[in-house]
Amino acid sequence: MAKQDKQFVNDIADINTDFAQWYTDVILKTDMVDYGPVKGTMVIKPYGYAIWENIQNYLNKEFKKQGVQNAYFPMLIPESFLKKEAEHVEGFAPEVAVVTYAGGEELNEKLIVRPTSETIICAMYSKWIKSYRDLPLAMNQWCNVVRWEKTTRPFLRTSEFLWQEGHTVQASMADAERDTQTMLKVYSDCLRNLMAIPTLTGRKTENEKFAGAEATYGMEAVMKDGKCLQAGTSHNLGQNFAKASDIKFLNKDGVLEYGYSTSWGVSTRLIGALVMVHGDERGLRLPPNIAPIQVALIPIASKVDGVVAKCEQVQEELNKADIRVKFDNSNNTPGWKFNEYEMKGVPLRLEIGPRDIENGVATAVRRDTHEKLQLHLNNIVNEVDDLLKDIQSNMLRQAEDNLQSSMTETDDFNTLVDDVNNRKVVLAYHCGDPECESEIKQKTTITTRVIHSYDDNHKCIYCGKKSKYRVYFGKQY
Amino acid sequence: MAKQDKQFVNDIADINTDFAQWYTDVILKTDMVDYGPVKGTMVIKPYGYAIWENIQNYLNKEFKKQGVQNAYFPMLIPESFLKKEAEHVEGFAPEVAVVTYAGGEELNEKLIVRPTSETIICAMYSKWIKSYRDLPLAMNQWCNVVRWEKTTRPFLRTSEFLWQEGHTVQASMADAERDTQTMLKVYSDCLRNLMAIPTLTGRKTENEKFAGAEATYGMEAVMKDGKCLQAGTSHNLGQNFAKASDIKFLNKDGVLEYGYSTSWGVSTRLIGALVMVHGDERGLRLPPNIAPIQVALIPIASKVDGVVAKCEQVQEELNKADIRVKFDNSNNTPGWKFNEYEMKGVPLRLEIGPRDIENGVATAVRRDTHEKLQLHLNNIVNEVDDLLKDIQSNMLRQAEDNLQSSMTETDDFNTLVDDVNNRKVVLAYHCGDPECESEIKQKTTITTRVIHSYDDNHKCIYCGKKSKYRVYFGKQY
Repeated sequence: MAKQDKQFVNDIADINTDFAQWYTDVILKTDMVDYGPVKGTMVIKPYGYAIWENIQNYLNKEFKKQGVQNAYFPMLIPESFLKKEAEHVEGFAPEVAVVTYAGGEELNEKLIVRPTSETIICAMYSKWIKSYRDLPLAMNQWCNVVRWEKTTRPFLRTSEFLWQEGHTVQASMADAERDTQTMLKVYSDCLRNLMAIPTLTGRKTENEKFAGAEATYGMEAVMKDGKCLQAGTSHNLGQNFAKASDIKFLNKDGVLEYGYSTSWGVSTRLIGALVMVHGDERGLRLPPNIAPIQVALIPIASKVDGVVAKCEQVQEELNKADIRVKFDNSNNTPGWKFNEYEMKGVPLRLEIGPRDIENGVATAVRRDTHEKLQLHLNNIVNEVDDLLKDIQSNMLRQAEDNLQSSMTETDDFNTLVDDVNNRKVVLAYHCGDPECESEIKQKTTITTRVIHSYDDNHKCIYCGKKSKYRVYFGKQY
Repeated sequence: MAKQDKQFVNDIADINTDFAQWYTDVILKTDMVDYGPVKGTMVIKPYGYAIWENIQNYLNKEFKKQGVQNAYFPMLIPESFLKKEAEHVEGFAPEVAVVTYAGGEELNEKLIVRPTSETIICAMYSKWIKSYRDLPLAMNQWCNVVRWEKTTRPFLRTSEFLWQEGHTVQASMADAERDTQTMLKVYSDCLRNLMAIPTLTGRKTENEKFAGAEATYGMEAVMKDGKCLQAGTSHNLGQNFAKASDIKFLNKDGVLEYGYSTSWGVSTRLIGALVMVHGDERGLRLPPNIAPIQVALIPIASKVDGVVAKCEQVQEELNKADIRVKFDNSNNTPGWKFNEYEMKGVPLRLEIGPRDIENGVATAVRRDTHEKLQLHLNNIVNEVDDLLKDIQSNMLRQAEDNLQSSMTETDDFNTLVDDVNNRKVVLAYHCGDPECESEIKQKTTITTRVIHSYDDNHKCIYCGKKSKYRVYFGKQY
């Protein structure tokens, strides 16, 4: 075993010295993803896609509670639509893919493969919305989007990715703002409850907001290398897109008014966050609530009478209790299997051999603590269930500890730069001037992540002028 | 009420005299779909999309039973990939949409928006498959595809549509053939059990098979106007794509061999079939198992004390039993609501008013038979559940009766043409010669749908030569 463990660990780059290579090794070797044939594209393999499906199931339930309905809008957007909102086209034009031929003919108007769907969804909304009685209107779609990026990495930044995008229209700015913040909370709860990922949430600065939004709120997760990953965003679009798309409604006073819209999305990026928040030197570590396989059940001395039968019985019991168990009765050695499921981040391993059966127990090994325990076969479902819950909350605690220890604060700019380069996220005061912020970014590649709190009683850490807010600085994925 | 009914019915074209307009009226007025801004595209609205989600949920469970795993492959396919399989490119080249620019630059190689994904999936499979131990490999993806069509109709034929496409590779032709037929059965069971749609299944002729397949099996549903709709297909691709994509595996004898692949899919077309198989002069009729709303609960005299409270109580009870109920407590009149949910095809309407409460009953009206019944409030869940089951089986019976009465058989070609023009599907003997079949199609627009049985003891209905099989002839959507 020790030898095999060693060999296995050697297959993955060291997490502490080469985090980037570690990430690539882990996602490829655990069969989550592969590179697609076109540069910058990815194939999401079943083990990665099952994680995405668990995110979908969680969010669909939450969206429904918020009165959001799923729908589907066309992928190909007339070029003229993208140009309707001035900031929006500036933000997205450089990275779109363009269909110029279809059905054997050159198209009269070029079609953009959606990089996001505000323009086409708002065009439809303007057709459907006539009166305040039609509001709020709240739809979501699960779909693919294309953004042609120069530098790509599977899950984190790819030319095509999967996401959901929700779009609401409200009758007032206050209601739009409430939607924006409610959905941000839905996202951060999803990361916390399902993925055991704590996040920093708050408003983005003017420089970092969505092209066309009045206000963007972001949710940042901090990876094990101290870099930030924007894990979800929620935009209050005010009347910008309503004006561009002519979404007008007759309000309660009988006056025609532009609607107030919002949009919000999370993507397959979240899978990258999951890997980089929880992984360790042995590979993935998946929190039970999102793990495609929660329990790997491995027979020991499977040729001995009764072992396979007992495993099958346990598998059935766990299945019935909706615990996602994989009974691996393949010809591989137990040691090979231990390594395999450890690398794949399965939260709990159960081993059942002849001696275990004699003693009425199963041996359990936790992925989060490596702790070895004995469970009672006659109470296996309850004990496994309790363990999975404990693993889930322990992983959240570990991730919270990591997040806390990643954070510092300072009033000195050189210290800020040193700290960020030393894998920290740094809280500091800033004047709020976009040019000051841009200068910091250009000089150091350090960006603001989300605003912590508004405060004009301090000095900007960079230019020394009066502060506007306290904001998280960090490096971003 | 009578007046309102009349008005409402007048809003939808007459199903008997103008079926095409009836279809368009129904799908637009029930908020299933709208036209997208680009010609030939559609927006699937929540009421239509919920039907698609129910199909997804059903099929995902069945796919899992068959060992098929969900995954996601890139949408943009290098042009050279499409050209690898000669028949395939010939079949699809005329209708593809082509990305020529991306990220502000002209692409070196044009990218095809997938019309189907055999070429890109097989390219990945060839990388993953090395030995017979890697087989069978079976993946499915839910995604959008684009086929640029000249004549389009929402759900039935659109430039972009949603579908699932499953792709397996097996180690032998026999296993590939088994996959092909198993998946056809999964589809026809889905239509029967979930959608209450009986189908004609069988092999397609050479003329009608998929571009690149060895054998295509089809599932045909017969619409109320007697026209056939190809509702799903399953292809045995033999070694065609394996050779084109170099999918080789080391077989058990240590010899390198090309794999045997299959593909199979159903699409948002199924929603069109659902409308055209079950609809009537008043609009949609949805079988309970697939209906987004199974029960419309409507308060009568809702201002009277206790009515709303009782409705809410019933709603909660039904919800708890996983019955999809909509309690409509809006300001519209009961009559307006009756029409609305009737048009939307909700299988069961429940009315609860002061007198019903006094008598401990709710009034139920079936969409399938218009029958009015009284249910006991103290046993409402069981009685509703029984009724929904009865409606489901009755609707299947009605659809089967329609299918039976749509079918005839003949040995005379003129009779065949008359019968097809008279809304029939006609069983007849054919020689199997592709040229003979093409001539029939050119002259009459009548096509073969699926082969009923092989038989060389008769004469071809058209050319008089020896028959090869008995086949269904009809007009197609």
